[in-house]
Amino acid sequence: MLKGIVPPVITPLGDKKNLDIEGLERLIEHILSGGVHGLFILGTTGEGPSLSYKIRNEVIEQVCSQVDSKVPVLVGITDTSFTESVRLSKKAAEVGADAVVAAPPYYFSMNQAELIGYYESLADESPLPLFLYNMPSHTKIHFEPETVKNLAEHSNIIGFKDSSGDLLYFQNVVRLLQDNPEFSLFVGPEEMLMQTMLTGGHGGVNGGANMFPNLYVAMYEAVLEKNFDRMTSFQKKILQISSNLYTVGNSPAKYLQGVKCALSLMGICSDNLALPYNSFKEQEREKIRHALNRFNVEEVLT
Amino acid sequence: MLKGIVPPVITPLGDKKNLDIEGLERLIEHILSGGVHGLFILGTTGEGPSLSYKIRNEVIEQVCSQVDSKVPVLVGITDTSFTESVRLSKKAAEVGADAVVAAPPYYFSMNQAELIGYYESLADESPLPLFLYNMPSHTKIHFEPETVKNLAEHSNIIGFKDSSGDLLYFQNVVRLLQDNPEFSLFVGPEEMLMQTMLTGGHGGVNGGANMFPNLYVAMYEAVLEKNFDRMTSFQKKILQISSNLYTVGNSPAKYLQGVKCALSLMGICSDNLALPYNSFKEQEREKIRHALNRFNVEEVLT
Amino acid sequence: MLKGIVPPVITPLGDKKNLDIEGLERLIEHILSGGVHGLFILGTTGEGPSLSYKIRNEVIEQVCSQVDSKVPVLVGITDTSFTESVRLSKKAAEVGADAVVAAPPYYFSMNQAELIGYYESLADESPLPLFLYNMPSHTKIHFEPETVKNLAEHSNIIGFKDSSGDLLYFQNVVRLLQDNPEFSLFVGPEEMLMQTMLTGGHGGVNGGANMFPNLYVAMYEAVLEKNFDRMTSFQKKILQISSNLYTVGNSPAKYLQGVKCALSLMGICSDNLALPYNSFKEQEREKIRHALNRFNVEEVLT
Amino acid sequence: MLKGIVPPVITPLGDKKNLDIEGLERLIEHILSGGVHGLFILGTTGEGPSLSYKIRNEVIEQVCSQVDSKVPVLVGITDTSFTESVRLSKKAAEVGADAVVAAPPYYFSMNQAELIGYYESLADESPLPLFLYNMPSHTKIHFEPETVKNLAEHSNIIGFKDSSGDLLYFQNVVRLLQDNPEFSLFVGPEEMLMQTMLTGGHGGVNGGANMFPNLYVAMYEAVLEKNFDRMTSFQKKILQISSNLYTVGNSPAKYLQGVKCALSLMGICSDNLALPYNSFKEQEREKIRHALNRFNVEEVLT
Repeated sequence: MLKGIVPPVITPLGDKKNLDIEGLERLIEHILSGGVHGLFILGTTGEGPSLSYKIRNEVIEQVCSQVDSKVPVLVGITDTSFTESVRLSKKAAEVGADAVVAAPPYYFSMNQAELIGYYESLADESPLPLFLYNMPSHTKIHFEPETVKNLAEHSNIIGFKDSSGDLLYFQNVVRLLQDNPEFSLFVGPEEMLMQTMLTGGHGGVNGGANMFPNLYVAMYEAVLEKNFDRMTSFQKKILQISSNLYTVGNSPAKYLQGVKCALSLMGICSDNLALPYNSFKEQEREKIRHALNRFNVEEVLT
Repeated sequence: MLKGIVPPVITPLGDKKNLDIEGLERLIEHILSGGVHGLFILGTTGEGPSLSYKIRNEVIEQVCSQVDSKVPVLVGITDTSFTESVRLSKKAAEVGADAVVAAPPYYFSMNQAELIGYYESLADESPLPLFLYNMPSHTKIHFEPETVKNLAEHSNIIGFKDSSGDLLYFQNVVRLLQDNPEFSLFVGPEEMLMQTMLTGGHGGVNGGANMFPNLYVAMYEAVLEKNFDRMTSFQKKILQISSNLYTVGNSPAKYLQGVKCALSLMGICSDNLALPYNSFKEQEREKIRHALNRFNVEEVLT
Repeated sequence: MLKGIVPPVITPLGDKKNLDIEGLERLIEHILSGGVHGLFILGTTGEGPSLSYKIRNEVIEQVCSQVDSKVPVLVGITDTSFTESVRLSKKAAEVGADAVVAAPPYYFSMNQAELIGYYESLADESPLPLFLYNMPSHTKIHFEPETVKNLAEHSNIIGFKDSSGDLLYFQNVVRLLQDNPEFSLFVGPEEMLMQTMLTGGHGGVNGGANMFPNLYVAMYEAVLEKNFDRMTSFQKKILQISSNLYTVGNSPAKYLQGVKCALSLMGICSDNLALPYNSFKEQEREKIRHALNRFNVEEVLT
Repeated sequence: MLKGIVPPVITPLGDKKNLDIEGLERLIEHILSGGVHGLFILGTTGEGPSLSYKIRNEVIEQVCSQVDSKVPVLVGITDTSFTESVRLSKKAAEVGADAVVAAPPYYFSMNQAELIGYYESLADESPLPLFLYNMPSHTKIHFEPETVKNLAEHSNIIGFKDSSGDLLYFQNVVRLLQDNPEFSLFVGPEEMLMQTMLTGGHGGVNGGANMFPNLYVAMYEAVLEKNFDRMTSFQKKILQISSNLYTVGNSPAKYLQGVKCALSLMGICSDNLALPYNSFKEQEREKIRHALNRFNVEEVLT
């Protein structure tokens, strides 16, 4: 059963259409060095839906080869075409990934019965075990808590990642799943990693862990130890990161732009984004540089 | 410049994963016999985003080959991956299609500047001229009227299809584009074909024309002739179709299910839908059969 | 049965808390001189919910006294407190108003059964006949078409005003009410007065008629006469008014600010708005002055 | 500075239009016996906006007289009419209340500048200090965190109650207000009382405290003591209450209906609701009775 910090890995791009393979290699090494419990590639933070299938396949191959089973690799297969999702899952299985993650198809809206039918078919055809991924801001649909409970009974569905940012909702899911302790419950927004762990969550899929993997791992451990002082200290740092790095400019992509820009400034990989997004211009880049210089993540970890 | 009735062609499926090629052939023949002014394949009604690329390519080839330039063929290339959209446009150009149609990428939200940048890049790389497609219920983004005006200046962007169902919005677009009379303005919802034509629109992309192409063509002509009596008579029939065929069951797909079920009952093609949707069960099918029997489209056309 | 143009009268305020009684008198005279078919006071355009009960009562008294049964007066009694709505209806009855208009209570959300129960109680207790008022952008609730049909059977509910701006919805209501030809169906947005009249509506509650009552009356008559040339000419002018006078500044109140500012420039009444809104500053006022000078409503009417 | 548990008191009604004065008296006594730190009357849970002004004034008088300064009394003055809000604040001041609470006017939408202007005027004219009340589901507007910070500088604005249920948002407000430790930050949803207290909140305005005031007080104290075992135990009970008592039936009022029904079954007051809502029928009442019998709040408190 998967627990802990499983960063949603960004996809370094050499230009708008090609992978930055060396950057990806450095990035994976950097994240693994922080002691994370797994990796999630081709998710929202990985810009999965914006990438060509050629790039998606390259990322799957490259990361699985490099990680070499040191930690579990989860692969995003979210797609509006069922057939293409299954194809990505087969690719992931071939090269040694451990599980796949799928948000609902996101063009057509559907009701909960259709949502259940869709995931049952996907779990039946996927060679790898499947995580449900709740991302209503992007997919226009919420997994009702009863739907999660229902799907959790499928033997090939092993967990749930919630990026709704809605603690009341997550708490309802935790409550309904309490008799199913082997089902992994993860949350996306790093700003509520602490509170959701205290609410019964098993870990976080936190974008900030691309840059500072050890900070989120440390928070995870502090919660397990019920060490309030360390929690409080880490929480301040986590909020400082999100309020400084994810709020520059006025694009809906400001979080993605901020993470990629910071990684570029840290010398890890390039900061190109796939269309429809663009990387920061110098003015915004300067703000990220300034913020990075000002705060020191290491000081809170010791 | 394209005007008139350009039906959004449904995609007949033999099962959830394969094209019903003979059904598609009969369907195209049926629609063309109604005197339509063009065809639009792989749109929302065509379930484009739910289909594998293999099927999408087959539909493009099959339809272009069969139509053989008798009327313009427009191809839906809507995708979240820019690269895949361009690839579909190239395929369409190779086999003789006339134009492509793209709704905005629909996973990530974007601002109007990013929307403009996206379409400029797409128009630059597309070998075929491009129609903008406004579908906010599915894509979560509205083309602001100023954005349409701005993009209309690109030489490879030749028209706009609005499926918002918002007459006030469409009227604003018409007003802003009044100095650009060569730019085609189409609307989706057939229930307001009459009113939008009277407001300055150039035609309709109406799903009901899969079943009754001559009715929508007759309405188009009645508006051009300002023949109020015929308009009123056709409008009643058009509303009868939508209130009887598109309201059965409780799926968000009820419109698609109704059109496909009716075509199946008319002996034209099978009624399978791509996941996440399903075709009607016998109970709903019986309601469509009953409705089809009760109303007689031909009587109003003479 | 009420038909035609029934302007939603703005409420002239001497300052934020007092009525501009002389302005109101001039305004009523001005509107009546345009040949309108009724008046609607204390609606959304009348800022009813923002006014103290003292002012609401003064407006009811003043307008009913001045109009003196020359045309029907409709009184807005929209309130979150049922008791206060009934009290306003009694006041309106006492001073000779002809009907009342109520949007749903707008703090708590409710389901359609509760909506029906609410209006049945209100119609039972109201001494004056009642118009339903659909205003989902402000009340957060839509009257489902079946709800309108259901409530239309109550003997004290005589009509429906739709300000949703949703033509497909309005058309559904028209269709469901077709066997009840004595039930008045009005629409709010003046930009679609023409199209909704052609769709089966009985008239418009159009804010622009505060300034130019004869223009909207002329459009109403042109539609009855099916005079396409006059319709087209009036429609251009109506759109010119809304695109120039209702789009200045960046407040959600820009429509209200524009109407009040124009009336003030026309010498009819003061331009104060009730809190939370404010009247235009000189910069915006100058834009309205410029627009008013540029277009000539009278020229299209002859 | 106010901290702790400040229950939003329901308003017992003898019938739809009259106060149940004896029930209100028993209710206040019951709540005070639980050791709460204040009372909030005429809020959302108190159905303030649905009540006549006569009843609102009676509630203010009755509660202030009965409480007699034993704990602070906060009075809801939320209204769409500024003048009526000020009148309610004056009434509250006359009879000895301690503060007033106002959500934004909820008919017209407004921008943040208008929101600020509105609250500055209200704070200027209110004789009692003012709490801001964020309730976007009902008012359609969110206080931006910067707006809260800005308004917190007004000497007559002393706190903020957030009922958005959005922990990320609340955390941003806490962060911005960290240099203003005298400004009270409360949250509404009891299901996240624990998590928001751990995030920097000062207390809860929790509807369940109408029934079980000592449970919420105990949770408040457990968090102050950082006693994880007691927190966990209380949290289970709090979630049991909300998942059993607030989920019966299918009205948007199910929470209000559940609280009033439970209080009626506990022999404290009648369960009538103001229009547009209705009290439970016998079938739903039986479910509440069953739930009340099954769980024992006292057992966790010892």
